[in-house]
Amino acid sequence: MSEKRKGNAVIGQSGGPTMVINQSLVGVIQEVQKHSHIDRLLGARHGVRGIINEDFLDIKNIPAELAERIALTPSAALGSTRDKPDHAYCERIFKSFEKNDVRFFFYIGGNDSCDTARIVHDMAREAKYDLNVFHIPKTIDNDLRVHDHTPGYGSAARFVAMAMIGDDYDNKSLPGVKIDVIMGRNAGFLTAASVLARKYENDGPHLIYVPEAPLSLEKFLGDVDRVYSKIGRCLIAVSEGVSAPDGKSWAEKMSEHLEKDAHGNLQLSGTGALGDFFAEQIKSKLPNPGGKKLRVRADTFGYLQRSFPMTSEVDAREARLVGQIAVKYSADPAVTEGSIAMRRVPGSDYKIETFLTPLSTVARETKHLDPSFIVNGNDISDAFKAYVRPLVGPLPTVGSFAEMK
Amino acid sequence: MSEKRKGNAVIGQSGGPTMVINQSLVGVIQEVQKHSHIDRLLGARHGVRGIINEDFLDIKNIPAELAERIALTPSAALGSTRDKPDHAYCERIFKSFEKNDVRFFFYIGGNDSCDTARIVHDMAREAKYDLNVFHIPKTIDNDLRVHDHTPGYGSAARFVAMAMIGDDYDNKSLPGVKIDVIMGRNAGFLTAASVLARKYENDGPHLIYVPEAPLSLEKFLGDVDRVYSKIGRCLIAVSEGVSAPDGKSWAEKMSEHLEKDAHGNLQLSGTGALGDFFAEQIKSKLPNPGGKKLRVRADTFGYLQRSFPMTSEVDAREARLVGQIAVKYSADPAVTEGSIAMRRVPGSDYKIETFLTPLSTVARETKHLDPSFIVNGNDISDAFKAYVRPLVGPLPTVGSFAEMK
Repeated sequence: MSEKRKGNAVIGQSGGPTMVINQSLVGVIQEVQKHSHIDRLLGARHGVRGIINEDFLDIKNIPAELAERIALTPSAALGSTRDKPDHAYCERIFKSFEKNDVRFFFYIGGNDSCDTARIVHDMAREAKYDLNVFHIPKTIDNDLRVHDHTPGYGSAARFVAMAMIGDDYDNKSLPGVKIDVIMGRNAGFLTAASVLARKYENDGPHLIYVPEAPLSLEKFLGDVDRVYSKIGRCLIAVSEGVSAPDGKSWAEKMSEHLEKDAHGNLQLSGTGALGDFFAEQIKSKLPNPGGKKLRVRADTFGYLQRSFPMTSEVDAREARLVGQIAVKYSADPAVTEGSIAMRRVPGSDYKIETFLTPLSTVARETKHLDPSFIVNGNDISDAFKAYVRPLVGPLPTVGSFAEMK
Repeated sequence: MSEKRKGNAVIGQSGGPTMVINQSLVGVIQEVQKHSHIDRLLGARHGVRGIINEDFLDIKNIPAELAERIALTPSAALGSTRDKPDHAYCERIFKSFEKNDVRFFFYIGGNDSCDTARIVHDMAREAKYDLNVFHIPKTIDNDLRVHDHTPGYGSAARFVAMAMIGDDYDNKSLPGVKIDVIMGRNAGFLTAASVLARKYENDGPHLIYVPEAPLSLEKFLGDVDRVYSKIGRCLIAVSEGVSAPDGKSWAEKMSEHLEKDAHGNLQLSGTGALGDFFAEQIKSKLPNPGGKKLRVRADTFGYLQRSFPMTSEVDAREARLVGQIAVKYSADPAVTEGSIAMRRVPGSDYKIETFLTPLSTVARETKHLDPSFIVNGNDISDAFKAYVRPLVGPLPTVGSFAEMK
């Protein structure tokens, strides 16, 4: 690698949007403006797809006022992509970089994006082409290895916690069984954040099911029956990725379960299907728990979790920071690649510091919820609450007549 | 009626919760504290059900700090009910009032609650029992006759507008067809509020379908095809109550439409079913509009619309106000019944004044979206935007690279 590097940079955004992915983008833009080693900053439209199509926006000199508004805007301002580049695709990326004298590549995304970054970096090294590649973390799933947590998660977790507060009061007001399906196909971090909704005794969610804790229908129905019999209502937070003891996800299994219905797949493939399936199980198999007539509803929070225009302040700040830090590392001749990670500074208050971890330590694989955070296969521990609370920030003030003596 | 009335009061909350129904409750409590004509203020647990069961909370002397926190809390703090009292039920309400020397009844709810209030008031008059009955408006559907708009609507409309902003950026980022199903079985006010999400050219929602404009599948598919072919994506806001040209709602019709599937009802009865049905129609009948591979998703916003803990400031203030005004009217010996309504003071800025309208003018029937607000059966007019904007308040700041020259 050359000692005094100089050249153009490409920045791209990838995968499912978050509320703060543009904070990281703007962090990169602002930091690039302060340094001299990056000549042009090319924003790739729709991630890697924009790179191979050379569909770039020159964004180094964007007006500060517009940059700040973009930072506040949900989802990827440059456009995102679901393309998962194979080796041939990565070669095209590399060719595009060579052609445009790109020496710096900042890629904002999850573990798949980190893997793409890793492969492209390896190709450059093989070709003895000086390319410096930085992965800027982003995912509402919070499933990146090495990283204490990931920008995007705090805001999504905040949405989930607030949604659960609201839905729990709704359920208190008109009691019944309510199922809320939460994003996170492989990791339960987002679903687990629903635990923050509890304040008073008997507050929901009363049952929390994450993908890391296999769930049988028998256990599910037994749990619901027990809660409903005790308090006359039941609020359930369930991950879209919740799985059965045989290892298959319920999203797959519910179709098998109903396979006698030849046309069942039609509706079961829909986004609301998993919640409706669980609701139907309760209605048909627990007709009268506690002797009361049962009201069962299901909602699927859907895309709102990643795009509702409301952020956790901590999350927005950290997302900006990791973008800035990536550019700082890119100015360091001793460094050619890495993912910008955060860790907590030990001590009583929440404080983080950033560090660089090799792309290979983050790429591809998923981090899961620590088993110690899961209680009885249907609840989340106080230790997890302590972990997630600072990422989400203060929640809305509420009050209840139950406080009256 | 006695000239100097004095006695106990009952307050109840009814129907689907809203974000500001407790503002009205707290408005009543605070105003009662300022007057002497109401001795005890009894909060009925779960509306009329609490009245017949004499399940009351004494809430006149609630601490101010707790009252303010309850005002901020979503859903009915006293509990709500779906009971629709018939004549016999109303008699039991009246008996409970007699027994507890209740001379004032404040009922927070929609048109059904207003009708209950009307019947109970008529019974009292027949029995020559001095009972003064006030309906305090509440509904996210905004479907009360006479009222310019209804507390609860502004906050729900704000949620919908914000959700649509987020989802539109999501859809720009990862283009495809996205369907969002919005509450309002009979009236399209909430769905229509999605129009506020538009800022830039080609912003979504691109198609808005309300119950007041019958929709054929042919029109729906033609609309989607046209939008997608033109801009490569399509965001659709559709009311859960959207109906077909034959007058039946699509929520009913989709089951018929698929009736060859003997088990179809299972999933079609679920909350996510309508969105999934429309998505499936697009996937199966418009496989490649514009020659591009189609990505179709559907979300149903569900209960979040009425309980997500976030308000429109105007809505919160007005909800408090109508509660206070109800108590003021109750002190007036010339008045025995009415619904507290708002109208706009003519002039350039948004300003409202309250007035009393007889219960019978609001009870039972639903107000619909004015046909002049509906454009082409798939869009909402600027006049509606002007109507709804002050109720929703300022929306989040956003920015786009499209602003760069």
